[in-house]
Order: sequence, then structure tokens, then C-alpha cells
Amino acid sequence: MNAPLRLGMVGGGQGAFIGGVHRMAARLDGQWQLVAGALASDPLRALASADELGLDSSRSYASWEEMARREAARPDGIDAVAIVTPNHLHAPVATAFLEAGIDVICDKPLATSLADARALQALARRRERLLCLTHTYSGYAMVRQARAMVEAGELGALRLIQVEYAQDWLAEPIEQTGHERGNKQAAWRCDPALAGPAGALGDIGTHAYHLTSFVSGLQAESVCAELSSLVPGRRLDDHVQAMLRFPDGVRGLLWASQVATGCENALRLRVYGSRASLEFAQEQPNELLFTPLGGATQRLTRGRVGSAEAQAATRLPAGHPEGYLEAFAQLYRDAAEHIRARREGRAVAPASRWLTTAADGVAGLAFVEAVLASHRAGSAWTPLQQEGAIP
Amino acid sequence: MNAPLRLGMVGGGQGAFIGGVHRMAARLDGQWQLVAGALASDPLRALASADELGLDSSRSYASWEEMARREAARPDGIDAVAIVTPNHLHAPVATAFLEAGIDVICDKPLATSLADARALQALARRRERLLCLTHTYSGYAMVRQARAMVEAGELGALRLIQVEYAQDWLAEPIEQTGHERGNKQAAWRCDPALAGPAGALGDIGTHAYHLTSFVSGLQAESVCAELSSLVPGRRLDDHVQAMLRFPDGVRGLLWASQVATGCENALRLRVYGSRASLEFAQEQPNELLFTPLGGATQRLTRGRVGSAEAQAATRLPAGHPEGYLEAFAQLYRDAAEHIRARREGRAVAPASRWLTTAADGVAGLAFVEAVLASHRAGSAWTPLQQEGAIP
Amino acid sequence: MNAPLRLGMVGGGQGAFIGGVHRMAARLDGQWQLVAGALASDPLRALASADELGLDSSRSYASWEEMARREAARPDGIDAVAIVTPNHLHAPVATAFLEAGIDVICDKPLATSLADARALQALARRRERLLCLTHTYSGYAMVRQARAMVEAGELGALRLIQVEYAQDWLAEPIEQTGHERGNKQAAWRCDPALAGPAGALGDIGTHAYHLTSFVSGLQAESVCAELSSLVPGRRLDDHVQAMLRFPDGVRGLLWASQVATGCENALRLRVYGSRASLEFAQEQPNELLFTPLGGATQRLTRGRVGSAEAQAATRLPAGHPEGYLEAFAQLYRDAAEHIRARREGRAVAPASRWLTTAADGVAGLAFVEAVLASHRAGSAWTPLQQEGAIP
Amino acid sequence: MNAPLRLGMVGGGQGAFIGGVHRMAARLDGQWQLVAGALASDPLRALASADELGLDSSRSYASWEEMARREAARPDGIDAVAIVTPNHLHAPVATAFLEAGIDVICDKPLATSLADARALQALARRRERLLCLTHTYSGYAMVRQARAMVEAGELGALRLIQVEYAQDWLAEPIEQTGHERGNKQAAWRCDPALAGPAGALGDIGTHAYHLTSFVSGLQAESVCAELSSLVPGRRLDDHVQAMLRFPDGVRGLLWASQVATGCENALRLRVYGSRASLEFAQEQPNELLFTPLGGATQRLTRGRVGSAEAQAATRLPAGHPEGYLEAFAQLYRDAAEHIRARREGRAVAPASRWLTTAADGVAGLAFVEAVLASHRAGSAWTPLQQEGAIP
Repeated sequence: MNAPLRLGMVGGGQGAFIGGVHRMAARLDGQWQLVAGALASDPLRALASADELGLDSSRSYASWEEMARREAARPDGIDAVAIVTPNHLHAPVATAFLEAGIDVICDKPLATSLADARALQALARRRERLLCLTHTYSGYAMVRQARAMVEAGELGALRLIQVEYAQDWLAEPIEQTGHERGNKQAAWRCDPALAGPAGALGDIGTHAYHLTSFVSGLQAESVCAELSSLVPGRRLDDHVQAMLRFPDGVRGLLWASQVATGCENALRLRVYGSRASLEFAQEQPNELLFTPLGGATQRLTRGRVGSAEAQAATRLPAGHPEGYLEAFAQLYRDAAEHIRARREGRAVAPASRWLTTAADGVAGLAFVEAVLASHRAGSAWTPLQQEGAIP
Repeated sequence: MNAPLRLGMVGGGQGAFIGGVHRMAARLDGQWQLVAGALASDPLRALASADELGLDSSRSYASWEEMARREAARPDGIDAVAIVTPNHLHAPVATAFLEAGIDVICDKPLATSLADARALQALARRRERLLCLTHTYSGYAMVRQARAMVEAGELGALRLIQVEYAQDWLAEPIEQTGHERGNKQAAWRCDPALAGPAGALGDIGTHAYHLTSFVSGLQAESVCAELSSLVPGRRLDDHVQAMLRFPDGVRGLLWASQVATGCENALRLRVYGSRASLEFAQEQPNELLFTPLGGATQRLTRGRVGSAEAQAATRLPAGHPEGYLEAFAQLYRDAAEHIRARREGRAVAPASRWLTTAADGVAGLAFVEAVLASHRAGSAWTPLQQEGAIP
Repeated sequence: MNAPLRLGMVGGGQGAFIGGVHRMAARLDGQWQLVAGALASDPLRALASADELGLDSSRSYASWEEMARREAARPDGIDAVAIVTPNHLHAPVATAFLEAGIDVICDKPLATSLADARALQALARRRERLLCLTHTYSGYAMVRQARAMVEAGELGALRLIQVEYAQDWLAEPIEQTGHERGNKQAAWRCDPALAGPAGALGDIGTHAYHLTSFVSGLQAESVCAELSSLVPGRRLDDHVQAMLRFPDGVRGLLWASQVATGCENALRLRVYGSRASLEFAQEQPNELLFTPLGGATQRLTRGRVGSAEAQAATRLPAGHPEGYLEAFAQLYRDAAEHIRARREGRAVAPASRWLTTAADGVAGLAFVEAVLASHRAGSAWTPLQQEGAIP
Repeated sequence: MNAPLRLGMVGGGQGAFIGGVHRMAARLDGQWQLVAGALASDPLRALASADELGLDSSRSYASWEEMARREAARPDGIDAVAIVTPNHLHAPVATAFLEAGIDVICDKPLATSLADARALQALARRRERLLCLTHTYSGYAMVRQARAMVEAGELGALRLIQVEYAQDWLAEPIEQTGHERGNKQAAWRCDPALAGPAGALGDIGTHAYHLTSFVSGLQAESVCAELSSLVPGRRLDDHVQAMLRFPDGVRGLLWASQVATGCENALRLRVYGSRASLEFAQEQPNELLFTPLGGATQRLTRGRVGSAEAQAATRLPAGHPEGYLEAFAQLYRDAAEHIRARREGRAVAPASRWLTTAADGVAGLAFVEAVLASHRAGSAWTPLQQEGAIP
């Protein structure tokens, strides 16, 4: 085995949620070791967090600017940085590390505007560094199986796509009233200054859109959308509904809501083609439903039936459930492979080729901005700004 | 027990589908006896069909006009007529029987235009006759349970409604090429002259819309919709997608498709309120999922847990599945109760008060016309024509 | 269509459960018309019940002995009698009607002893009359599909059978304390004088065993069983657990319980062969799960995928759920076909050949007696008394 | 955070399955670091395996005897050893490390005889060292939730327990014929010399039994069992079926099969009490079904609804699936807590108190030996040897 890569982290201090997930995911496959961090904006909390994680105190930084500068200068500096801050910092932090020549693993969304996302994409390309996004759900074996089946033509010509992402954690105005759980998360996610102009749209709508394009291989051409703030007093959208037009007459619906009472993390994708259909539900990630026209629905299971891509994203035999952390770990494994391949001057292993990259981040922002524009125009059909995208 | 009511039927001859369903449904509870019919436009097929059903040949009519006239004149004439023809005949046949003073049980849609539907509603009111629609799915015990729970406020304030109705029987152009199954059905349902201007929209979109309003108690204020003919050469829509605005800021999505490969009769309704949500899937009609905010999803089952209305629509103990025919039979049982109550000068039993009536038919056509108009206007938000509705 | 056959009924008066089910089932397909009955042992209740059902008062009998005698003498006497009394009367009533030359449709179990069952089987054969049992679950289309697949060898060599039938309606001692629901049912079903020596074993264990042998084509060679009365004070078993040995080394488990809290009518059969397996759950009767070795589980659905036998037991298209009443109606349809075929001197239509007959009733009693004997012998392996069976 | 504990491993070299699982599980929570190993009996393979895992070559041992001796002597010697060898080595290896004063984490079964298991238990007690078993399924949050609910009396008095563990990976004689997958596993698991006298019984029957006793808090008093080798030529049982008697009249069935075609890793437990029931299915580990008598089934989900014990075994919010590795990691986390608590002279944290210990291993062997004895005695009811157990 190669020695683990050295990972730094910006954000993810005590009380944060997604930082801990990144750390478990990075650890799972033994490919990464956390060695540095600017874990919190508050210096004391940053230090306490670093201590709790066993970081050497010399590598717990008070600011990400300093961290980028000093880690780049160390002979044993970090191989990559994981950015797990609120959304508004994604772009500046990523910029600093890319400028310092350090590979970047960024929580989604890539930025809070399409322009920023494009600038980042161009920077990464110029500096020849990895800029990848943790669209977790694309790491599931059965999502990769779905993509492989679409690519292989098993669905025939695509016709319809239905995607939905329903949660209920914002069903009450917890960002306003304070609440024992979720308060801190809710506070920044419902604040336009920290989350950007999109609420549920940016937080989970982008996941739904990414899953759709990841599996179908299609980007929407235009959207007809409406945003709502269904909880009184909320400053950002908590419900998104949109009709989508894809190339070649493919049609679709997307809805994302954080006030869908009773829903936990109900991301679900259904793709209908002329010959067959697929259905994936994130809460049952070890299976994929496949139904050929006129035939019986088949429950494809991880580890038993699958493409090479699905097998490569599988750690355990069929019937031994994998979950969200394994999907997340897959992205870290893929990122490690991309970095190693570049350093070794070789091609990326096929099993890791579907890593979510800056191009996906740009596409995500194009979707967000088109939805915002459509909403402002009274749900007018609005094209996605695709020019300039670097695939 | 009261003696069975006498039923006549227009349409439903050999080779038809829905006529046989009406007959089984009418028979199940022993409240109706089929005694007369104009079962087919072709006289020979009409006679053969009547013979097969054991009708007295004197009451097998060559035309529905004659049937209405002669049955109205008999002392033992039919108590009600079931209309199970292609859509374009619903209005003229219903008119003839209502004019003859005969109660009408009509397959949906009530008519092929909103104007015709309103005229029928007014006529029924003027003649003081029953004009009810067989929106089958409202006969399910667990659909009635859902309505009762919404009415009782168990969901809190409604916020979101998601309804979908997916089939795949038109996934291939069987109306064009001929096909061993479904051909005859497909031929008229895809022909604007027989089905009216709406394809999947009229056929199943109206069911989805009715189920939504039945359970939620809400009619949409406006729609933003797009119709598609996803199978090449099809003359009517086979896919409908629409965003809906209901009163008080409630939002919704509706999709109906007859080309959703792998779907059989997948009508599904989800209603989210501030306190709880409900989910009903027609293919599992003995259960209703209820999830209070922050709590566990509860699987409410027919016969075990339920409101008075649900219990009244239940024939068998829990765990002994009821199905589509029982739901359909419920409408016939309710219609019989309405007729008997009127004749006996008493109020309708509460358990039968939710029979689908002409007002629902009018609302359905208002929905259809608004969707058609929105589609023609490039998915502009279009209000439903609600003025003049007689609730 | 042939004119409906004339049906009489013994038992099934007001307050009874299964009689009403028989009547709906007989009515559904239009093959039977109820014309006579000895509906209750109490004459007044018998008359009131007959009136409620619209029977001619001259054919409402005070006793089944009289009914058998007088109906046999009428030129328009009943074509068959349905016996829906408590178990201890099945044999004497069936005997009386068979002796009178009248075909018999009997609720299960056929009798309360194996000797009685064999005597009935011999009598029916001697009198050349139909003696069939309403093992409802064998009327489901997907159960027939399962049998067809086993017969066709799609499972390979059978190896394991798991069958279970779990209810909870006797989870409390309602036969002792009185209870608003179920009391009357519970009273006779928990009384050895009325139900026979077997409680849950006779009531539902026999259904589980019949389903097993119906689908697998196998009768158990021996059983190793234990009965329990898990509710204090209960006089008959409410829980049965048994290991089964079938021919050719096939092994199985059977459990049946009426105190399995939370279970409604959870009859479930799983059959494992060397090449594939099948699973049927009565509460989801429109589907059958089929899994080939190494492949994906396929959800076979009624109306979409099926053998000729399954199609013949299907009334509605796929996705339009059928239920318990339709399965029950299938038995009445099959019985009508058997009677008509005999009278017309022709072979029974293949689709009706799987009607449950006296031989199944004899096999059921052989199972019951073997379980009772094994239990009494401290769960010793006990052979089923198969000699003398007339297949 | 405390520094990670140092872990050694015996077994788990290249080509093994469970060793890799142990390593991922140990790594996930950051509590353990693998530093030493005797990974394979073949010295070259041992070295290659150690190198692949990044072990220092000085701590890759040619034999476990040497490893125990030398690690015990190092100041930075391992804190615990994980034993992941075939079954017949569990007892001698565990003995060696316990004698050396090193804590032991052992794959199940603890030994291949009850006598050996008891000797180990006594040794661990005498040496005051941890001897824990990786009964993985007891690490699932919802299994702990089930146990907490039973302990809290939410089910009332227990009555029935149904447990099953069905797999199909031995449905073909792959241990005899060779096979591209599973061959090596199958070879030792079907060989009495390496696996001990119990095949499926020892491999998965013990898991089923442990899950039963873990959740219910009950040990069986006696068993009535039958073993079968359903695949021709197999030398050990591949199918176990057993009736169980628990204290206070509780009854149960257990079946475990490795030839149940179509089953992946279908471990399922159902516990019925006088007031409610519970159902857990390992392949859907994020949920637990709870049904109160007369009420609706509730789907309790990890992270949303749960006891303190379930919350403590939870890493992610509801709707973000956890799986088998997280359950396994829980055992490693619990073991670390036990070791730290002993060293720090404090009580074990309540959340870790349910670690599977030597007493469970002894109980498992008592179960295995009773089943073997019952089988040999023609399925006679056979008591479990409970005397001498150290709870």
C-alpha cells in the first residue's frame, strides 16, 4: 500500500456536522491522514478542536490564509485540503489553496455564484490541481451502477426523469427561534449572507440536480421553476419545484424541500427510457430497481449484480449494507487516485474516473442561477448558461 | 335489505374494459342488478353482449337515445344508468338520461369541455337527479381515511402536495401500429375526436387531480404546465407535468404519464402539513402512511386503524386485502344510498356523503382546460376557471 | 352466459363473519345466486337473516336437515350448498347434503377428525358429487403462478420450505372476558367442543399447510411439533410450531400463531429450490417474488407477468389491485365450472383444475392429527397418516 | 481525544475476507491503529500482507506464539489483538494472548467446544483481561434500540421469538468443486477439522442465537433441532432448524441456512410480547418496526427516534444510512472504552456496556452443543448446559 496522503481541513471544528463526516470518510479506506487544520474562525475553538482530533498544535492554524501559505512551504505539507465551511467561503478558500498549489476537496456548492465557480474551474485548470466536489451520492455503488446502465443503453432512449429530495429538518423556523438541535446549521443555511442566494435550492436542490446529470449524462437546457418559503419569516427558499427540459425532448421534474414533514433525507431518482427504467432511493442505497418494458421489476443489489464501476465502489459482500459514509469514502478514494495518478504520470484508474469535478460544480451553479432567474421571471422557461463550461 | 336497484348501461359491450369493471363493482355489494343496456354502437355486438350478460333481449337497445326514452316510460325502468363509453359521448348520453329523469353514474371525465360539464351540472340540479362520477380511487377506505385526517386537522396547515400517476401501457405507439393488447383502448384514447383535446391529461391526470382535491379539500388556483407527446407520432399528450398553486400558499406538483416504462398504475399522493404528512399509493391501497413531525412513520391499515368514514368503506378485517373492485363498489354503494335517501326524503348517510359528484367533474374540466391553456401559453401560470362552480 | 347457479347456505346468519364473505365472493363473478338458507340455529335469527338477504321466506329453513331434504325435492332446488358453520358441524351438514345429492362447498377444515374427513371423501366419491373446501389463499392468481412455476421446474429441486401464518386477534383472552369485537368468533374457536381438538392449528395452521402443499406439490412425511397456549387460561392452542420433513430430503418449518402481536393476517410462504426461490405474502397478494440463484429478485405482478393459470385467475389489469374477495370468488368460479362440466359431460377447464377438493381436506386433517400426536409425544417425529388417501 | 490504541491482528492476510472488515471497522472511529500482525500462516504471504498494510516489518510475525511473546515484551506493545483466523485457532490464539496479558477481540465463535469456551472465559477473568466477541449485529443502533425497548418493558411479557438467518452462498457445492469466488472461505467453513463440528450452525446459527438473546435478554432452556446437509456431499450442516423453549413459557423458532437460494445475508429477528412486537432485518439496519397491540406499525429510524443506547451507537443523522461497517466499528469503539475504563480505574460508559463478552461466547457454544446433541438424539428436546456460566 502507498502511504496515506496528508489531509488538511478548513472548517469542521467542534459543533459542526459535515467536517466529522469528511474525517470518517477520509479515514475509512486508509488512504488519508488528517494532519493540519484551520478548524474554526474562533482561535480558541480552533485549538480545542485540533487537540480533540490529535493534530499537532503547530499545524492548527488561526486562519486558512496562513494555513495555505505555511502548508505549501512545508516539505511534509498537506497533499490536499478539505473545505467544509459555510458556502460563502468555499470560493475564497479554494482559491487560496489552489493558488498555493494544493489540491482541493470542496463541499458543495463550489461557490455562491456561477461566475465564481467558473473562475475556480479556470484556476484549477491553470494550476493543474484537482478541484473536486463532495457530491456524496455519486459515490454510492448503485448510483454508479445506474450510470453504467444508462451509458450501456440498457434503458433505450431516455424520456422522463423524476428527481426529488425531501427533508423536514427546517419544517419549523428553527433558524429564528433557536432550537436545541440544528440551530447552528439552520442559522447559516437560512442566512443569504452565508449561504448565498439559494436556500434549499443550493443545499439540496444541487444534489438532486447533480444526481440527475450524473446518472443520465444529461444537463438541462432550460428550467421553469418556482421557489417558496413555506415557513413564515424564512429568508431563503425552503421549497423548490421545477420542470426541466433536457436535450432530445427528454422531460423532467425536480423538487427539493426542507419542510416536507416526515422526510429524513429522501433523495430519489427515477429515469424512464423507451426500453426500461431505473429507480434509486438514497435511503435504501444498496439496491437499484430496474424494470424492462413489459417485464418484472428487478431489485439489483450491491455486491450481487453489477457493473465493473459498481463493483469497484463496493467494500462488502451483498447483504452486508453499506451506507452514506462508504459513499463519501469513495469520493476520498477517488480523489486520492486522481492525485496519485497525476503525480505518477499515469492515467486515472477507470474505477475512479467518475469523481465529481469543478465542471460539475459549474453546472450546479448554472442550474441554481437559472432556477433563480426563472423564479424571478414568474416561472418563465429559462435556459441554463452553458457556454464557457469546461467539461 | 332493500331490493337491489335496477341498473342500465351505455357502452361496455364485448371487448371493452371498464364496462365489466362497473358490472363487477355494481354486483359486489348486492345493491344493483343490471337489467338493461345499449352496450355497443354496433347492433349485433350490442345484442351478443346483452345475451352474454343475461339481459332480457327486450331491454337491449340499439341506441342510447331509445334506451333513455323507453326505460323512462317503463314502470320497472332502470333506477340509474352507467355511462361507460368513450369520453366524447359522456355529455350527450348523460344529458339524455338526465332529461328523462334517470339518475346517472358516469365514467370520468364528465365531458370533454368545461362548458359541457357545467351544463350537465346545471341540468342535474334542475332535474334533481344524481349525476356522479366514478373517480374510483376516492372509494378506497384509506383514501377516505386520509381525507378524514386532513379534515380533522391532523396534518396541521397544509404546505405541499405531490401527486403522480404513472403508467406505461402507451410506452410504445400501439395506437398506430396495432398491437395484440390495448389496441382498441389505445385507438380511441389517442384520438382527439373520441377522447377530447387531452390525452394522458384527461385520462389519468384528472384522476390525479381529483384525488388531490378529494383528500386535501383544496382546488388549485393556478397551474404552470407542459404537455408532451413523448412517443413519436402520437396525436395527444402522453406526459403531463405541472406546478400547482393552491390557496394559502400551498404548493404542489402533478405529473401523469402513460409512457413511464415499468409503471403499472402508479397513482401516488403525498400531502405534507406543518404537523404531519400522509402518503397513499394506489397499488398498496390497504395502507396509508402517516408521519408526525419528529416521529416515526406509522403504517395505518384498513380495518385496524381508521375513522368512521374509512370503516364504513371497509368490507373485510385487517390483513384481508381489498382492492380496486371494492373501491369501485363503494361508489356504487354510495350512489345507491344517495338515490334511496332522496326517494325516502331523508339525509344521505354520513358514510356515503363523499360520493364524487358533478361539481368534481366540473372542477376536473376546469383543471384540464387550465393545463391546456398554460401549455399553449408556454407554461404561463394560468388560473382555473372557478367562477360559476356549484359546490 | 350460463344462468347463475343456485346456492344455499348453512350458517352465516347475522353477526357471523365468513358467511358474508362467501356471499360476496359467490356474487362477484355473477355465477351464483343465493336462494336458500339455514342461516342460524336460532329460528328467529335465521328468519331475520334470510329477510335481510332478500331470500324467499319459504326457503329460509329452521334446520339444515330440513333444508337438505326439501331443496333436494324441489325442481328448482339449490345446485350447491355452502357450509359456513363452526367446525364441528362441517361433517354432519356435508354428509346430509351429499346424501341428498347436492354439491357441497365447505369452509375448512373439512371435519374435526381424520376419520370423518375420509368418510366424507368416500361419500362424495360414491355419490359423485363435488365436495370442495374454501382454502381461500389457493385462489390468488399469484399463488397459482407460484404453483405453475414449481411444476415447470423453474426452482430446480426443492430444498426448503418456510411457511408462517401470524395473527394477533387472540392476543388477549377475549374468549374468556368478553370483548366488544371478536367475542363470538373467539368463543367458538377457543372451545374444543365447537372447534375440535385444534385451535390455531385447525384454524390457520391448516391454511398454512394447505398453501405449502398446493404450491410445492408435496405432502409432509412427518412432523416434529409443539403446541402452546400462550394466553393464560386458553383451552386450545394459540401457537403452533413445527418442523417438517417432506419427501426427497426437503425440509421445512411451519408456525402459526394467533397471538403474534401486531400481525393482521400474515400468511407467508417461501420455497427454496436449487435454482431459484419464491416468496408469497398474503397481505401483498398481487405480487410474487422470484429470485434465481445469483440473480436479482424479480417482483412478478398479477396481470403483467404470468402463467396461463395465473392469467385465468385474474380479473383486472396489472396495477389495479385484486384482493381476498377475488381469491375467494375464484373458488366459487372454479366450483361452478366443476359442476357445469360434470353436468355437461365434459372435462373441467384447465384454469379451474386446481380447485381444493376433499383430498386436500383429508390431507389437512392428517396434518392436524400428526401435529397433535407429535405434541402429545413430546415433539417426537410423527408420520402423517397417508394410507387410504384418495388423491 | 485519547491517542489511538495499538492493535495487532492474527489472521487476515491477503485473500481473507473478515480481516479487512476488522481493519476498516477499527479505523472508522479513529480509536485504533494497526501496528502488528501474524497475518498468515505462510511466512511469505504474511510479510506481503503486512507490507500492503504498511506495518513495520519488525512487527510482522511468522507465528502468533512469537507475536504474543514479543508484543507483550515491548514497551509500545499492542493494546489488544484481533483474532480473525478460522475457528479452530480461536481458542489457542486467544489463550496465548490472554496469558501474555493482552486484551483479545475475537471473531465468533469463541471456540469450537463449550469446554474450550469456558476455559477461555475463566482465563480472561483470572488475568483480568478483556475477551470480547465480534457479534457484529449487536453493534447496530437499532438492535440496541430493540434491546432498550425490551428492557423498558415496552413489549409487555415476551411470548414468541422468531429468528432466521438465510444466505445462499453455499447453495452449490463450491467447497468441493472449486469456484472462482468463495472457494477458500467455503473450503475451511465446510471442513470439520477447521470449522469444528458445526457448519451453518456455527457460522450463522450462532449469530442468530446471539441476536435473539441480546435483544430479548433470554437464553434458551432447551432446543429441539434438526441439522441437514442439503447439498449433496457436504460434510457439515448447511441448514439448521430448531424449536426453542425460553424461560416463562416463551417459545421460539430458529432457522439458519446457507443454501436458501436468493438470500444474501437475511438475518431477521421478530419478538412478540403481550403488548407490542418488534422486527429487525439486518439488510435494512436503519429501521426497526414496532407494533403495539391494536395499533399501527411504526417505523423507528436510526437518528430520529431512539433510546440513549441507540443514539450513542449513531454517527449520522436520520436518513443518512449507516451499515455493517458502522455496526462493526461500534464493537471496536466499545472495546476501546472497556480497555480505557479499566486502565483508568473507572466504570465503563453506559453506552458501551453492551459489548459482547466471553459469557456470550460461552452461551453460544452451549447453544451449538445442545443443537448438535438434539440432532443426534432424533430431535429430542435437549437442555442447554448453563451451569458454570459466568454472566
